[in-house]
Amino acid sequence: MLVLALPGQLPMAQRLARSLRCECSEIAQHRFPDGETLVRIDVPVKDRCVILTGSLNQPDDKTLALLFAADAARELGAARVGLVAPYLAYMRQDHRFKPGEAITSRSYARLLGGSLDFLVTVDPHLHRWRSLDQIYPVPTAVVSSAPAIARWVRAHIQSPLIVGPDSESRQWVDEVAGLCGAPSTVLHKTRRGDYDVRVRLLDKGPWRGLTPVLLDDIVSTGRTLQAAARALLRAGLGAPVCVVVHPLFAADALAGLHEAGIARVVSCDSIAHASNAIALAPALARAVRAVRTPDRQTA
Amino acid sequence: MLVLALPGQLPMAQRLARSLRCECSEIAQHRFPDGETLVRIDVPVKDRCVILTGSLNQPDDKTLALLFAADAARELGAARVGLVAPYLAYMRQDHRFKPGEAITSRSYARLLGGSLDFLVTVDPHLHRWRSLDQIYPVPTAVVSSAPAIARWVRAHIQSPLIVGPDSESRQWVDEVAGLCGAPSTVLHKTRRGDYDVRVRLLDKGPWRGLTPVLLDDIVSTGRTLQAAARALLRAGLGAPVCVVVHPLFAADALAGLHEAGIARVVSCDSIAHASNAIALAPALARAVRAVRTPDRQTA
Repeated sequence: MLVLALPGQLPMAQRLARSLRCECSEIAQHRFPDGETLVRIDVPVKDRCVILTGSLNQPDDKTLALLFAADAARELGAARVGLVAPYLAYMRQDHRFKPGEAITSRSYARLLGGSLDFLVTVDPHLHRWRSLDQIYPVPTAVVSSAPAIARWVRAHIQSPLIVGPDSESRQWVDEVAGLCGAPSTVLHKTRRGDYDVRVRLLDKGPWRGLTPVLLDDIVSTGRTLQAAARALLRAGLGAPVCVVVHPLFAADALAGLHEAGIARVVSCDSIAHASNAIALAPALARAVRAVRTPDRQTA
Repeated sequence: MLVLALPGQLPMAQRLARSLRCECSEIAQHRFPDGETLVRIDVPVKDRCVILTGSLNQPDDKTLALLFAADAARELGAARVGLVAPYLAYMRQDHRFKPGEAITSRSYARLLGGSLDFLVTVDPHLHRWRSLDQIYPVPTAVVSSAPAIARWVRAHIQSPLIVGPDSESRQWVDEVAGLCGAPSTVLHKTRRGDYDVRVRLLDKGPWRGLTPVLLDDIVSTGRTLQAAARALLRAGLGAPVCVVVHPLFAADALAGLHEAGIARVVSCDSIAHASNAIALAPALARAVRAVRTPDRQTA
């Protein structure tokens, strides 16, 4: 087995390689003056199971390099080529919301699936798709961040109240709350645009004295969490702690969260960020071992 | 038939649609704050032959949108989905120049081929690949810019000497020269890096009194043409006119060409640029009519 970091993502790949006890190398990338990308694999891949590793935030900058590297590994004799993408892109456009729109989640799955033998990711944004298998034509394994998040909450927060920002998060919030032995609630959210989100606390239940722990799977602009924090403060609760699985964090997102009264923001290390506090590599390594079934020796 | 402009490339598509006497619309594109791209087709495509149109310079910014649009057109019932890309990207990496390198020309061809029924382009950079059919799994048609360039040279340059920047350009330079009834020669080129190119005039033949017309298929940094112009001036010829098929032109390329003593730079309109002077739409339209063979009615 060999872990190959996508360009610029060596630390994440090294953590995975340590958990898998295997070699790790970074894919070299060159951008030509005309904007074309060239990748190069600097270690032998022949007859090895190659695990391309990196998060797919800002995906348009990364996807061609990933596909080129997967093809090169296969041409150079890799036994199998899988992808560990702790953050999987293009999961949110799962419907033609306006006539004529592309359903990019499906197209993107077909693209990646065409060059990979398997895929491992963490908490993909599944809403209208029930599972990755509906769109990904290769074996997939989904790692749940809930156990690692629950461990962090138990270790760091006394008397937590686990809070989800919207009804979609209900099942996951209840799972984390169950693992923590803590109560939970979800907020009511209305989205009017990329940057315009309204959130209300409907369930006022006996939350005094508890520390709200706001969970969110993907944080980009942070507007949802800002609105959620304000709703909690308006309802008389204390300053919330935020726990984020995929810290996409657009430029000013973190500042906005603190302005909205959030006491602390921590994240899983699915995307490299200063807020990373919860390690996913051990769970990713277990998933890799499970998905690379030995009966699929050839591509 | 329907011509659909890739985002931001409406003028080129409109010229093609006029030559094809068919409707034209631009694909709408939205970039989400997290860097993901959404495309939308605002005209009916059901049972129509859809011609996606746009140049693929700076390809990493354009390719996912193109593939998403092709998939959407097919899902929305298009009878066929073709691509007219006057400039086709990723043709230059046609070999593993260093161990472990990707052969991106082949990977890119497989990617595009997976979403398209046919492809039309202008003078693709064919060096180690003899034809697009070696790597593109769909029918392709290649438009030669030579007749349009020869018409421009005949109309604008008295007593031209057609000059190629390197031995690879020999066949094409001879074709243009033949169509112009002009003499021709090619220079000797050595490339040492993206920006370091050496060029010499080996054939000193009786060129006094002729205006050198330097042809080049792809101009990115312009270093090759700068070196070529200097070689011609050193050999005592007059200030050359440059004719470029694909004006990629990195930021300071045009200024560099004029500094090197080039009298005038003109280009084919394969990529929108202020130097565009040679129209390709009529030839592209003829190629589209030829390649959309009626026996391939379904995808």
